[in-house]
Amino acid sequence: MAASKEEIAAFIAAEFPQTRVRVLEVGHKSCRVVHDVGEGELRPGGTVAGPVMMATADVALYVALHGTVGIEPLTVTTDLTFHFMRKPAGDKGIVADCRLLKVGKTLAIGEVTLFSEGDPEPVAHAVGTYALPPAAHRRQK
Amino acid sequence: MAASKEEIAAFIAAEFPQTRVRVLEVGHKSCRVVHDVGEGELRPGGTVAGPVMMATADVALYVALHGTVGIEPLTVTTDLTFHFMRKPAGDKGIVADCRLLKVGKTLAIGEVTLFSEGDPEPVAHAVGTYALPPAAHRRQK
Amino acid sequence: MAASKEEIAAFIAAEFPQTRVRVLEVGHKSCRVVHDVGEGELRPGGTVAGPVMMATADVALYVALHGTVGIEPLTVTTDLTFHFMRKPAGDKGIVADCRLLKVGKTLAIGEVTLFSEGDPEPVAHAVGTYALPPAAHRRQK
Amino acid sequence: MAASKEEIAAFIAAEFPQTRVRVLEVGHKSCRVVHDVGEGELRPGGTVAGPVMMATADVALYVALHGTVGIEPLTVTTDLTFHFMRKPAGDKGIVADCRLLKVGKTLAIGEVTLFSEGDPEPVAHAVGTYALPPAAHRRQK
Repeated sequence: MAASKEEIAAFIAAEFPQTRVRVLEVGHKSCRVVHDVGEGELRPGGTVAGPVMMATADVALYVALHGTVGIEPLTVTTDLTFHFMRKPAGDKGIVADCRLLKVGKTLAIGEVTLFSEGDPEPVAHAVGTYALPPAAHRRQK
Repeated sequence: MAASKEEIAAFIAAEFPQTRVRVLEVGHKSCRVVHDVGEGELRPGGTVAGPVMMATADVALYVALHGTVGIEPLTVTTDLTFHFMRKPAGDKGIVADCRLLKVGKTLAIGEVTLFSEGDPEPVAHAVGTYALPPAAHRRQK
Repeated sequence: MAASKEEIAAFIAAEFPQTRVRVLEVGHKSCRVVHDVGEGELRPGGTVAGPVMMATADVALYVALHGTVGIEPLTVTTDLTFHFMRKPAGDKGIVADCRLLKVGKTLAIGEVTLFSEGDPEPVAHAVGTYALPPAAHRRQK
Repeated sequence: MAASKEEIAAFIAAEFPQTRVRVLEVGHKSCRVVHDVGEGELRPGGTVAGPVMMATADVALYVALHGTVGIEPLTVTTDLTFHFMRKPAGDKGIVADCRLLKVGKTLAIGEVTLFSEGDPEPVAHAVGTYALPPAAHRRQK
């Protein structure tokens, strides 16, 4: 059973207490999240650090997945591939649009396009795989 | 200057004489191609071999790029990442939809979603980078 | 139970009847294979086609895996990432050295470095994931 | 001209002021770094957060590259691919062993194997590409 935006936001806050990612929208096999950007997210030169973009994509995939199959805390990231395309603006949040390409019994695969808030040209792209816990270990639904 | 669909098809036929990929559409930063599937493309069990899907994605990125920046024979593939999601049908062509995420001076990056002809669920996904020749080595435009 | 080099070679010949990959060595979590190169493997300009290198890496991972866990025909490729580094020689085979990084219950992950036969500088690198069939569907051992 | 371990450590401290990565060894086309792990690096459950491993691999590739071609501040990450294999220990640092596979004029490619300090089984693996600034923009050597 899919989890609501509020359930997912609460779960993300509990699982990733340090994160500055906020859930904006959750759809079937998709979501939009934003990572707020402040001094702590910048590199010298005033651009957003790569790990901030990587963490945002990881959370986006996690959110889309929980929004589709329900909260599954034992879900783990198996692989993540990033391409970095443009320097993000240092004074704008990083927005991540995620769509899931497959949600199978044991694996889910999705992709994420990352933007500087308000700019249509992507700053980075990610694709990732998540291993879902065996049915026997899943939470009661 | 962008190349036309006919120019690209002629170039692909010359560069990849063995390929069974046909160019269906070429747009700005996008294209659709199809790889015909016959006995030679199948694995035991009747599914399309992985290398066929990989070659299709590679050609799709190549076509979209030439359709956007013109024919650049010195363009080389730098990286390709594939995720395989479903077994493709053995009696249908592999259709590849490509969009370029960045076309810079020295690098172009794009992604491809692969389908069995007529089936909306993706069978595979690819993302890749291409190194463009330095301006000094580019063909007269 | 691990499969022998001969068992694996027979399996590869049956599963990939078109392949020109030969198994040279099989160790625990490792192997070396070679893809013979002839006219059919070349691109205009005389270099080995990218899909040939990709297919070689895929087979290498498959061989190392079967050499470690035994022949498991239901094993499927989940993801493959390639980086292309140098133009391979057109008159030498493509040698692939594979080591597995993880062999778990449901997933195996490995990496492959590809060379032109006799040249120490790598021409390409691959990393990939394979989904193993659930224990219930595995062959009698 | 290659940079020394001390020069690189100073550069990393300036470029990534928040990082907890320390440079242990720098060789030709290789390096070893460690990311110290404390409360701030853990996820609920006591394992090291994925972004910590990702940032460690990124810095390792950066260190190996500067150790080989000299300090090039305009170097940018083009792509990074991660595979996550085991849960890292929450009370041990993350050690990264990096080797560069290619150092060309415009691109460098390398791979990283990540371990929990003292444990021989890898927890994660990364491969990445870095774009080097055009010669005209490089620092005086």
